[in-house]
Amino acid sequence: MKPELASTADTRQHLRAIIFGTETRWGRYFDISLIVCILLSVSLIFIDTIDSVHQEYGGLIRIGEWFFTVLFTLEYSLRLYCSENRFSYAKSFYGLVDFISILPSYLGLFIPGANAALAIRVLRLFRIFRVLKLLRYLAEGNLLLKAMMQSSRKVFLFFFSVSLIIMVLSVVMYVIEGPHNGFTSIPKSMYWTVVTITTVGYGDITPQTPLGQGIAALTMLIGYSIIAIPTGILTAEISHEMVKMRDLRKCSNCGKTGHDNEAKFCTQCGSELETL
Amino acid sequence: MKPELASTADTRQHLRAIIFGTETRWGRYFDISLIVCILLSVSLIFIDTIDSVHQEYGGLIRIGEWFFTVLFTLEYSLRLYCSENRFSYAKSFYGLVDFISILPSYLGLFIPGANAALAIRVLRLFRIFRVLKLLRYLAEGNLLLKAMMQSSRKVFLFFFSVSLIIMVLSVVMYVIEGPHNGFTSIPKSMYWTVVTITTVGYGDITPQTPLGQGIAALTMLIGYSIIAIPTGILTAEISHEMVKMRDLRKCSNCGKTGHDNEAKFCTQCGSELETL
Amino acid sequence: MKPELASTADTRQHLRAIIFGTETRWGRYFDISLIVCILLSVSLIFIDTIDSVHQEYGGLIRIGEWFFTVLFTLEYSLRLYCSENRFSYAKSFYGLVDFISILPSYLGLFIPGANAALAIRVLRLFRIFRVLKLLRYLAEGNLLLKAMMQSSRKVFLFFFSVSLIIMVLSVVMYVIEGPHNGFTSIPKSMYWTVVTITTVGYGDITPQTPLGQGIAALTMLIGYSIIAIPTGILTAEISHEMVKMRDLRKCSNCGKTGHDNEAKFCTQCGSELETL
Amino acid sequence: MKPELASTADTRQHLRAIIFGTETRWGRYFDISLIVCILLSVSLIFIDTIDSVHQEYGGLIRIGEWFFTVLFTLEYSLRLYCSENRFSYAKSFYGLVDFISILPSYLGLFIPGANAALAIRVLRLFRIFRVLKLLRYLAEGNLLLKAMMQSSRKVFLFFFSVSLIIMVLSVVMYVIEGPHNGFTSIPKSMYWTVVTITTVGYGDITPQTPLGQGIAALTMLIGYSIIAIPTGILTAEISHEMVKMRDLRKCSNCGKTGHDNEAKFCTQCGSELETL
Repeated sequence: MKPELASTADTRQHLRAIIFGTETRWGRYFDISLIVCILLSVSLIFIDTIDSVHQEYGGLIRIGEWFFTVLFTLEYSLRLYCSENRFSYAKSFYGLVDFISILPSYLGLFIPGANAALAIRVLRLFRIFRVLKLLRYLAEGNLLLKAMMQSSRKVFLFFFSVSLIIMVLSVVMYVIEGPHNGFTSIPKSMYWTVVTITTVGYGDITPQTPLGQGIAALTMLIGYSIIAIPTGILTAEISHEMVKMRDLRKCSNCGKTGHDNEAKFCTQCGSELETL
Repeated sequence: MKPELASTADTRQHLRAIIFGTETRWGRYFDISLIVCILLSVSLIFIDTIDSVHQEYGGLIRIGEWFFTVLFTLEYSLRLYCSENRFSYAKSFYGLVDFISILPSYLGLFIPGANAALAIRVLRLFRIFRVLKLLRYLAEGNLLLKAMMQSSRKVFLFFFSVSLIIMVLSVVMYVIEGPHNGFTSIPKSMYWTVVTITTVGYGDITPQTPLGQGIAALTMLIGYSIIAIPTGILTAEISHEMVKMRDLRKCSNCGKTGHDNEAKFCTQCGSELETL
Repeated sequence: MKPELASTADTRQHLRAIIFGTETRWGRYFDISLIVCILLSVSLIFIDTIDSVHQEYGGLIRIGEWFFTVLFTLEYSLRLYCSENRFSYAKSFYGLVDFISILPSYLGLFIPGANAALAIRVLRLFRIFRVLKLLRYLAEGNLLLKAMMQSSRKVFLFFFSVSLIIMVLSVVMYVIEGPHNGFTSIPKSMYWTVVTITTVGYGDITPQTPLGQGIAALTMLIGYSIIAIPTGILTAEISHEMVKMRDLRKCSNCGKTGHDNEAKFCTQCGSELETL
Repeated sequence: MKPELASTADTRQHLRAIIFGTETRWGRYFDISLIVCILLSVSLIFIDTIDSVHQEYGGLIRIGEWFFTVLFTLEYSLRLYCSENRFSYAKSFYGLVDFISILPSYLGLFIPGANAALAIRVLRLFRIFRVLKLLRYLAEGNLLLKAMMQSSRKVFLFFFSVSLIIMVLSVVMYVIEGPHNGFTSIPKSMYWTVVTITTVGYGDITPQTPLGQGIAALTMLIGYSIIAIPTGILTAEISHEMVKMRDLRKCSNCGKTGHDNEAKFCTQCGSELETL
């Protein structure tokens, strides 16, 4: 075994721990700076769509965009270089997202006029999804996700029932108000019902007849009261998950459970608790 | 006893388990495809109300509508054929809904011009209510329904109090703003109050006087804060129901209660739990 | 002691139980019909403010109004007649409300032109407050009221903090947007902030500058997230009150507590429970 | 030791207890009157921005403003006089706030025209922040603050996820609706998404295409349902904190815990409880 090779393998493993892992300090620093870079580069693309900004700072933004493209290309190469199985990384969902998000700038070089094509420019925004990957090490997220999973059937049932209510109210309002008051079709009436039942209330379509205003008031009160249902479901689940999480924080010395997340010592015998 | 008859009775019983029941695999498949068909046929009627769609795809939609009418007629015949007591099925609420929802297309054939009558076309939308029947086998629905039943008196009391608040605020705003600012009558003022207190806020009627804007701000803050009350009531009830449901999941071996809905084995002795 | 007098005293006591009490069956019937009468008479006054209704059905409404006035006068006389201490009833808050709500119609007779005076007509709406009195015998109301009392200090603190946030945001928006964008004064800016933070969103005043729209988005997100606070406070209190109420439902035979409100028998020993 | 000095030191200590402390009765009176004065003086500045009020009552408001300036100057001098370490008070955050909030009126005297400068006038509104200091002795605030601290990581995670959803929906709506329907840039589209997802719904920008209205309806339903998440998190935390607070109310005689905040005697042995 040649020492250089061993050293290379060591470097690769070290790099992998930083780039893919979140356990080491440098791994966390890398992830946080990556999130910041992604959000900065996405903000750049966002403000470039403002006409006045594009005309005045277009050049600066293009430079910034190339800076981030090079940065993310470098990062992609490093990921390819140090991943254990390069092909399986390249094929994975996040590997594809990483690749797609650096592609558009290079396409703009080779294909003339492609720089202007909205579809390609939008691809750069795929970077947003990379942030999701970097959120995976948050314990809080797991608790919330578990509570949502547990309540997903109930919430689905709730939204199914709400859909039925929306359909019925849409038909009723379409029949009462009719096309000359803005309810030109049942899908448009459904749009109005969603705007009303979620208490958004744009006011671009409003009922004009007294009966329509009465049904509208009823729709609002329904929306106002049924918002309690998903809240109730989720609160009960989160509450249950939090109690369970506290029960898991058991003192290894005396066996007392129910310690808070931030507790460092057992409230009964004072021995140190394991960190979560 | 003739074997053919026995076989026919067997077939009817088998069909009944599929069409009316939800315990067998085929029964569930039948119900799910029925829900999909109902939602598709209703969507068809919905998009047909869009003028441009009606003019371009009106023919296709009519074909689709006849396809579903024949399908639901077939289903209705099958239900009649295999129900134990045909007359009591035909008389039942869902039997009537099933019948009414296939009627309009045939009426359109026999009565000239009836095809255009909105009232008859709307009858076809009765199919939506058939979906309700198919939701009955969801355990989650029962928990939610029970929590809502338990809290119905409290929620009714809440809405009664809100109605009184709405009435008082409507009168106050009618007196302050008056007809020339859009508050043309107390019922219209009530419509505005509901729009405001539920935080919908169309903006079709808005207070113009400083005093009116002050009362409006107060109305919004009232609406914003009292939304907490039904949420609180329902959350407390759902929480209680969920604890009760977990208590029901008792291990038949060691007697431990409080297992999660998704738990398959007892957390204390490891013996298998009954499914909910 | 003369028998007629005893009988009169008996009748008065009987009437008092019906008119003032809620324990007897007839007492409850009386209260419910009174609520219905009050709501009907108030609705009459409400729809009378619609111009077209007033012109077409004005005569009918006047007759209805006189019918209710005579009815409430009769009821007021009966209350005076059968109350133990007439003067103290007449002086009490509800006694005054009862009196004021029948006054306007008679004033309209004696003072010419008074019928048209809005201020006097509005007095008739005082009847609404009489409904409040009739709600007193609902146990659910007491639980909600107690939970609200318990959390009132926390909720007051919350609204005080929200007021400070509203003030600061109003000043910021007034400085950023200025009078030419609808933010003509700080009070008007406060009106806009309340409209925005409570998620009502009329759209009569909207920010026009990019910075203003950014602050507006922040205001909305603040409003959207802090709505959780009163809900959280109240839910925790209601939950606690409901547990306490269940603990009160103790079996007198075996001592088991924690029965539901609707439970009629002890879940442990089967003996009958006292009704709440 | 000279008696006059002792007396002066006593007076200073006495004054300090009143002005800086909240334990004595006069200290609380002082704080409450100060809050009232601050809110009154701020209201004065607020209504002065209304043009008609400024023209008619401008003189009166200037007198009131000077009255409060003198009052707060007096209070600032007293604070300086009786604080143990004058320089450290003057340097502290609240010391600076106290100083800045009295400065503008005097600047208006010495610098000609400065009276009109908006920036300087706004400095007077710094007084609002002084109210914050006076809220510190509320036990309820601590419970709420602790619950918010505990849930801050979860709530941050929630808002981070919501930001990602807002970004994605903004890009989608910008592509679908385009500049001619009001979605002139992605930041503007983000403004619309926040207006919609928080259910504010101004209606100044609304989707015009059927697809856009469909995505808008989806955005509303997302906003309507995810509002449950922060509520659920906070409710679970507040509930937990309240149980913990009740557990702290332990009877020193029999050791029973779990007394309500307002309980004065032990529910088991009747001995007096310590006040919270």
